[in-house]
Amino acid sequence: MYDLAIIGGGPAGVSAAINAKILNKKFVWFTSGASSKKVARAELIKNYPALPDISGEGLANALKEHTESLGIDMTEEIITGVYPAGDKFSLLAGSNVYEAKAVILCIGVEVQKPVDGEERLLGRGVSYCATCDGLLYRGKKIAVYCTDKRYESEIEFLCSVAEKAYVMPLYKGYDIKAKNAEIILKSPVKFVGDERLTAVEYSGGKIEVDGVFVLKSAFSPATLVHGLKVEDGHILVNRKMETNINGLFAAGDCTGRPYQYIKAAGEGNVAVHSAIEYLSR
Amino acid sequence: MYDLAIIGGGPAGVSAAINAKILNKKFVWFTSGASSKKVARAELIKNYPALPDISGEGLANALKEHTESLGIDMTEEIITGVYPAGDKFSLLAGSNVYEAKAVILCIGVEVQKPVDGEERLLGRGVSYCATCDGLLYRGKKIAVYCTDKRYESEIEFLCSVAEKAYVMPLYKGYDIKAKNAEIILKSPVKFVGDERLTAVEYSGGKIEVDGVFVLKSAFSPATLVHGLKVEDGHILVNRKMETNINGLFAAGDCTGRPYQYIKAAGEGNVAVHSAIEYLSR
Repeated sequence: MYDLAIIGGGPAGVSAAINAKILNKKFVWFTSGASSKKVARAELIKNYPALPDISGEGLANALKEHTESLGIDMTEEIITGVYPAGDKFSLLAGSNVYEAKAVILCIGVEVQKPVDGEERLLGRGVSYCATCDGLLYRGKKIAVYCTDKRYESEIEFLCSVAEKAYVMPLYKGYDIKAKNAEIILKSPVKFVGDERLTAVEYSGGKIEVDGVFVLKSAFSPATLVHGLKVEDGHILVNRKMETNINGLFAAGDCTGRPYQYIKAAGEGNVAVHSAIEYLSR
Repeated sequence: MYDLAIIGGGPAGVSAAINAKILNKKFVWFTSGASSKKVARAELIKNYPALPDISGEGLANALKEHTESLGIDMTEEIITGVYPAGDKFSLLAGSNVYEAKAVILCIGVEVQKPVDGEERLLGRGVSYCATCDGLLYRGKKIAVYCTDKRYESEIEFLCSVAEKAYVMPLYKGYDIKAKNAEIILKSPVKFVGDERLTAVEYSGGKIEVDGVFVLKSAFSPATLVHGLKVEDGHILVNRKMETNINGLFAAGDCTGRPYQYIKAAGEGNVAVHSAIEYLSR
């Protein structure tokens, strides 16, 4: 059982991790690396005070070196669900479950909007986790919608289980070897079904499937934590970065505009201080 | 008339100034230098993300160089009053008056609490401004309570006007030459008077005076802006850093704990973005 789980590796997550470490908390830090990649893609950052004219890559490296200098470990697993359970939280990462007394979400803002029907049918034919749900589709037809090359091993695993897999890779340089995989170079526009998913629609076509796997590194807050209050896609927080769920905090772009590195870093700091206050109660 | 006035030179003020400059606003930035001095006094800062193990002096210099690299001018005047007037603000700095459409307070937290009676008798015998009010006390008896050596020229000016001046210098190495000055090495504990100030009490004594000048670089928010909502000494703001007064924003330590450089810098950024949204309405 950890005191604190921090989800996300952008400036908010880094700031939270730094403070949790300095304040000597027992914490686990989940970073997919995706948010730091987003920082690294910035061309030139002129408004991170005390670091004039730093490149995105420069800032990403400096943040990384800061955590390394403090000996902070990262856990490169993707959290697909956070479940409040009394005075603690269960965090699902593939088939692993972590437990923490408090959680800080630094999950950024999703670049892709959820597919129509994705949130409604989640757990009823829509899955975020190949390892957890893959075996349910042995001998069945599935679709796999994937936004990042590093999930290709999960695609291969799903193909080895299913009878037939329609794979929609939304990244460059895909290399899928499974013989029962049919590549569709389109994005899904709708997940169809009433009680359960029955089909996936894409521009110009429709496939009948028993399940669809969505393999991505950023999730909309509402699908990540059931019952979390969200407005216009942003997690509702107060000045202490408290969400509507006791013990659950949020920081960074996921809490709203302006989307600014220094704002995110400041909020990560505040969230840790509030979490520690919460833990001491 | 400026679009924006930023008051304060700590990390919140620097962050605000950087963003106002980059976003090409017509702004004036008042820094007494006092808040940066506070940063410079920090021994070692371990949690300013991307700058591991930086000394307070190192961070203060880096912030200064950042503003210089952008060619940002500072105005080294001390604002002693902010007066909302319709859709603009008047800012009093000694005998100078500045006008701005929006104001961001980055005034830090006062180290000294106001003296008992200070806020109540402000403008009725208690003054923050030697240049503005000094001549009212020609031939009279005054007390001068001063927390910073750089106001010594104002003390000398007040002594040249008044018949008699009781000077309470709360700093090291005072050097007051006026012959009519009597040094009292105590802090005032109470400003006495009903309609107007009549006396100043200090531990072990009391002096009858017509006025008292309080020369300090940090002011409590409530004395700086009449009508500003303050709670436990902190300016009440929402997530957009808006105060209860239209067009008036606040950022940094003055808005509450945690007192952290990165939190202050983040809030300075948010305040400018909100101010610009306000100006565009």
